[in-house]
Amino acid sequence: MSSTFGTVFRVSTFGESHCRGVGAIVDGCPPGMLLTETDIQPQLDRRRPGQSAVATARNEKDRVTIQSGTEQGKTLGTPISLFVANEDQKPGDYSEMAKIPRPSHADYTYQMKYGIRASSGGGRSSARETIGRVCAGAIAEKFLDETYGIEIIAWVSSVSNIGSHEPNLMTISRTEIDQTIIRCPDRKAAAEMEALIRKTKEEKDSVGGVVSCICRNVPAGLGEPVFNKLEAMLAQAMLSIPASKGFEIGSGFAGTRMKGSEHNDPFVNKGPRLGTTTNFSGGVQGGISNGEPIIFRVAFKPPATIGRQQQTADFAGNETILEAKGRHDPCVVARAVPIIESMAAIVLADCVLQQRSRFP
Amino acid sequence: MSSTFGTVFRVSTFGESHCRGVGAIVDGCPPGMLLTETDIQPQLDRRRPGQSAVATARNEKDRVTIQSGTEQGKTLGTPISLFVANEDQKPGDYSEMAKIPRPSHADYTYQMKYGIRASSGGGRSSARETIGRVCAGAIAEKFLDETYGIEIIAWVSSVSNIGSHEPNLMTISRTEIDQTIIRCPDRKAAAEMEALIRKTKEEKDSVGGVVSCICRNVPAGLGEPVFNKLEAMLAQAMLSIPASKGFEIGSGFAGTRMKGSEHNDPFVNKGPRLGTTTNFSGGVQGGISNGEPIIFRVAFKPPATIGRQQQTADFAGNETILEAKGRHDPCVVARAVPIIESMAAIVLADCVLQQRSRFP
Amino acid sequence: MSSTFGTVFRVSTFGESHCRGVGAIVDGCPPGMLLTETDIQPQLDRRRPGQSAVATARNEKDRVTIQSGTEQGKTLGTPISLFVANEDQKPGDYSEMAKIPRPSHADYTYQMKYGIRASSGGGRSSARETIGRVCAGAIAEKFLDETYGIEIIAWVSSVSNIGSHEPNLMTISRTEIDQTIIRCPDRKAAAEMEALIRKTKEEKDSVGGVVSCICRNVPAGLGEPVFNKLEAMLAQAMLSIPASKGFEIGSGFAGTRMKGSEHNDPFVNKGPRLGTTTNFSGGVQGGISNGEPIIFRVAFKPPATIGRQQQTADFAGNETILEAKGRHDPCVVARAVPIIESMAAIVLADCVLQQRSRFP
Amino acid sequence: MSSTFGTVFRVSTFGESHCRGVGAIVDGCPPGMLLTETDIQPQLDRRRPGQSAVATARNEKDRVTIQSGTEQGKTLGTPISLFVANEDQKPGDYSEMAKIPRPSHADYTYQMKYGIRASSGGGRSSARETIGRVCAGAIAEKFLDETYGIEIIAWVSSVSNIGSHEPNLMTISRTEIDQTIIRCPDRKAAAEMEALIRKTKEEKDSVGGVVSCICRNVPAGLGEPVFNKLEAMLAQAMLSIPASKGFEIGSGFAGTRMKGSEHNDPFVNKGPRLGTTTNFSGGVQGGISNGEPIIFRVAFKPPATIGRQQQTADFAGNETILEAKGRHDPCVVARAVPIIESMAAIVLADCVLQQRSRFP
Repeated sequence: MSSTFGTVFRVSTFGESHCRGVGAIVDGCPPGMLLTETDIQPQLDRRRPGQSAVATARNEKDRVTIQSGTEQGKTLGTPISLFVANEDQKPGDYSEMAKIPRPSHADYTYQMKYGIRASSGGGRSSARETIGRVCAGAIAEKFLDETYGIEIIAWVSSVSNIGSHEPNLMTISRTEIDQTIIRCPDRKAAAEMEALIRKTKEEKDSVGGVVSCICRNVPAGLGEPVFNKLEAMLAQAMLSIPASKGFEIGSGFAGTRMKGSEHNDPFVNKGPRLGTTTNFSGGVQGGISNGEPIIFRVAFKPPATIGRQQQTADFAGNETILEAKGRHDPCVVARAVPIIESMAAIVLADCVLQQRSRFP
Repeated sequence: MSSTFGTVFRVSTFGESHCRGVGAIVDGCPPGMLLTETDIQPQLDRRRPGQSAVATARNEKDRVTIQSGTEQGKTLGTPISLFVANEDQKPGDYSEMAKIPRPSHADYTYQMKYGIRASSGGGRSSARETIGRVCAGAIAEKFLDETYGIEIIAWVSSVSNIGSHEPNLMTISRTEIDQTIIRCPDRKAAAEMEALIRKTKEEKDSVGGVVSCICRNVPAGLGEPVFNKLEAMLAQAMLSIPASKGFEIGSGFAGTRMKGSEHNDPFVNKGPRLGTTTNFSGGVQGGISNGEPIIFRVAFKPPATIGRQQQTADFAGNETILEAKGRHDPCVVARAVPIIESMAAIVLADCVLQQRSRFP
Repeated sequence: MSSTFGTVFRVSTFGESHCRGVGAIVDGCPPGMLLTETDIQPQLDRRRPGQSAVATARNEKDRVTIQSGTEQGKTLGTPISLFVANEDQKPGDYSEMAKIPRPSHADYTYQMKYGIRASSGGGRSSARETIGRVCAGAIAEKFLDETYGIEIIAWVSSVSNIGSHEPNLMTISRTEIDQTIIRCPDRKAAAEMEALIRKTKEEKDSVGGVVSCICRNVPAGLGEPVFNKLEAMLAQAMLSIPASKGFEIGSGFAGTRMKGSEHNDPFVNKGPRLGTTTNFSGGVQGGISNGEPIIFRVAFKPPATIGRQQQTADFAGNETILEAKGRHDPCVVARAVPIIESMAAIVLADCVLQQRSRFP
Repeated sequence: MSSTFGTVFRVSTFGESHCRGVGAIVDGCPPGMLLTETDIQPQLDRRRPGQSAVATARNEKDRVTIQSGTEQGKTLGTPISLFVANEDQKPGDYSEMAKIPRPSHADYTYQMKYGIRASSGGGRSSARETIGRVCAGAIAEKFLDETYGIEIIAWVSSVSNIGSHEPNLMTISRTEIDQTIIRCPDRKAAAEMEALIRKTKEEKDSVGGVVSCICRNVPAGLGEPVFNKLEAMLAQAMLSIPASKGFEIGSGFAGTRMKGSEHNDPFVNKGPRLGTTTNFSGGVQGGISNGEPIIFRVAFKPPATIGRQQQTADFAGNETILEAKGRHDPCVVARAVPIIESMAAIVLADCVLQQRSRFP
């Protein structure tokens, strides 16, 4: 059951990096919603590696197919099966990699857990696993947009020790985010981040970073106390993304250094609803959305695959030197942006459907 | 289903602050384990408020009763029902509190979600809800101790901007932790923290802090990729605790500022198993435990209930001044310690039982 | 998780026959519903053994207490904890019963499954386990009555080879059912059944029977294809009741002998909705309710506990003679009536809440 | 979540009759098991319609592809995605069928539930939905065979009012079953059944029947009391199969007419284990397998699609005559045989994996 997420809006993903393909089943999507592949492909394109490559090349890859659950462009309320073929379906050779678990990769732990593992490319721990999430997330986003006009926007707020100015949270858009390759809306910081990443690549090393996310127009009342609190589900969702190491909502870790008199968000009349003048809560109180924007951040470690030689041990415990071959991505945060948006959308869609059960 | 947590080792909690009582059902606990109330009460006592008060008074309160699932001191493999009576079973009066939602409390969001809410004391968002978790966690801990000798120890690592030296992670114990009221093993820091909390109390304000936790002797192979990764389940568990705002594992947010060549944990022969020389991963790689200690931190905001006057709005949207009456706790982190240990134990016990299903 | 039933309206039961008590947690009940113990006790009284005994005696036993989830007589939308104390909380002696598994009882299988078992009275396989179901079912019934005016009525339709005339399905009521001890509305058949049961009791033997159930005013659209079809969930619910051996809906097994041209239920205009002129479908088509009454039957075997001597083997495999001591019930169908109603109510309440998630 | 079945061994199916394809994801299958398409295809072939048609034609249809979860012919312990393309991927025209709900079909109820429905072929209520179950069931069977040598064999025991002699339950095999088209091992009865079906087809009518199933070599201890009792999960599984109307285990409905002294299964020493001399329990006591064969029966109604004219009403409530066009199957029981085996295998595999969690 580990590959299924959600209670009413449920997503089950499948696929290794070198099997026939990857994808997901979305069960519980409301019926009668307009949906075709064109609603999903754009976010899938944003997830793709090599974003700076020529557009034509990009369009030929990672095409999603809806295999079931819709007819004549509308959802039937039945399971929506989504499939993306793998280009490289041949597992690699059982050579060096088979004998040496890559440091801070999942080779060793998969072997210990399952007694077997995909022979190359990371198998289920590969970044390709996130394709199914992004497909499902695009459907969730469409539902959220149509029901409440909910907008979910993530961006890179830091890379290594390069921070950035917070964008205007009320207006920041994906268009704005996508104007830099690193997906940081602070142009000056973005330039520095990109320079650092290029330098890091030359050094055959990697760097980490932080992605911020805002969800606007979320109605009050979402989240299921006590174990499925909105922040708890977001935390699970975010920590399930490969390479993530931390999650914080609202004031987060910085909030631990504030006084209650500073941190409390005073209520104020915001016309049709009660709002707050500050938002240290991050849009959630007691595990339930309060109508203010949901704001959270996710920490990503530097990618474990680096070109440098690494002193380590093989599976048998013998000391050895590992030198990774081939291309590798020195920083994953830009690509994590659509994955975070997708997981946030899945969480919110599930919360909306659960909340509906309470009132006729 | 929001009050149930876990897949095979499943905990369902119940109870508001002013109903007859609070507690939990633990379903899926293995049969034949020795278990009586004396295995549970100590951790429940550690959770109690007023730890510095006279011992006699303390012992009379929050007594757990096992209502089912054991016979002659052994688990039967059937649901274990745990009950703790509430002392104050009369809900408060519908006065000021009923009209004014407390800032950064759950009054407003519960009302928006359910259209009704417990009239006083926080209802289900009250700290008393965590009693059921601690009862269940004590059972999980016993199971983990007996099967793998797993030790779970949490402590306060910072209060407001007062940090502390990291204890010896291999030897730190609950006995050592409990030697200061604030549960910080760095005695000097503890004294400063306690002084700050006393000062804060005088100022009718509150402060936040960070709790660290280590889980030792966790075998490799625990955690269920991809959505129920060990760190994802810990994140959900921790963010479901009242007042928590962040979670990080291993290097966490600080790790985002490291290079891959620094952050990767090299493998080394550790006798019967492969280990790592550093532990920036926090004991988890690819969502699965690697045999090294699990290390994580949880951020807690300053408690929302403060004695100071607060400018806010009532439910009708009218500006008003709120002044909380009665006692309130200016810092929750010391009490959060056993709750964090309990939730970690529940997560790990569930992971152990799920992993068992793979091999005969 | 085996003691939890339902997806949105979720019931978790606990309790053995000789522990402190039995009960249930109901999670997911909509908020704002009027609910006190007086809504639950009547159905619990109907479940009680010794229905023909003096009323006063009866009223002192099996009193339910709502421990959480309501305030001032209204549901809060939080888990409702229900408790009924056991009168006899001392497990029996480890004598004959401990060495000899009772034929067609659960002694042997519990021992094989758990490696331990409650020392007397059946433990979790005891009829007392159904108390939690009936408590939860009464809440489900109240919800169904208030939302759709749904009526659920079960009755005994056969005992051993004594059948009965089908009552008027549109008017049959619990009042009518309860006019005979055996709960068969056909007075003549009821008299014969009761005579047979008395005779069987004298012979220290037992008999089985069939209970029929109708659910009226069920709206079209309930049931979750494909695995949680309405009839599938009813089948699971009914076969989970102790001593049940079969389930059939609508035409059931008799329908296997009909032609399609006879069995198909023609549609007809029934004013506000489309109805059918016959109801061989039993109110369900394709796993979804069609607006006609849900009709099903449940088979109960003769109780395994009989006073007669039985040739059998002890746990060690030695031939032996077992002679049950004490009182025993020669026929369980009359008491099964409220249990069946309760389980049907839980299934329908869960279906209603799940269906709500589809449309705002 | 309605299209997912199982707790640890979990099957999620997808697909309508006229979308791109149908299939399933199996999550929780133990790692390291040999598995290729050739383990699945034979049971899928047995499920196919037109079994009496030329073999060549048959082999070209309904070919399963494993899309993920295996490598070099072994399971990885990750989700196994299974896909079977639909031949006819164009939904039918919105003509007569669109206006007139077919009596005793799911057209009306799907429309009422979802507000939309697949325009032809039954969509999700189509028999093609069972392809995913059979694929998943074949995997479950392989696991059960390898771990315990469990054998699951179903056969047609009656068609309309034509019964049959019970086969030798200890030796009956699929080979033996498949020697007649109707899959009834009683050759004389089989001939009568086939004659009746041919006659029924000429009359443009349909007939129902009963399928029996035996599961041999099931170890004691499977089944999860109280709601997931083995018989309860089997009942859910069987009633989720299209056109099924009833389920009974062991003595079933006939057992209601027996005395306890006849019905109780006496224990006897069967060498390494305790067994019973009779098996009215059907291999299950208290919801847990006892080591004797599991025996159950499933009732199937006559198929709703018949060639005869039917007096009915259209969606608008107007009286009309419906005359079904095209081919239709006058009896589904022979094809139900592998579906029942598959669902039984899925239930048992899930029970085995759950039981493993109890003991190291």
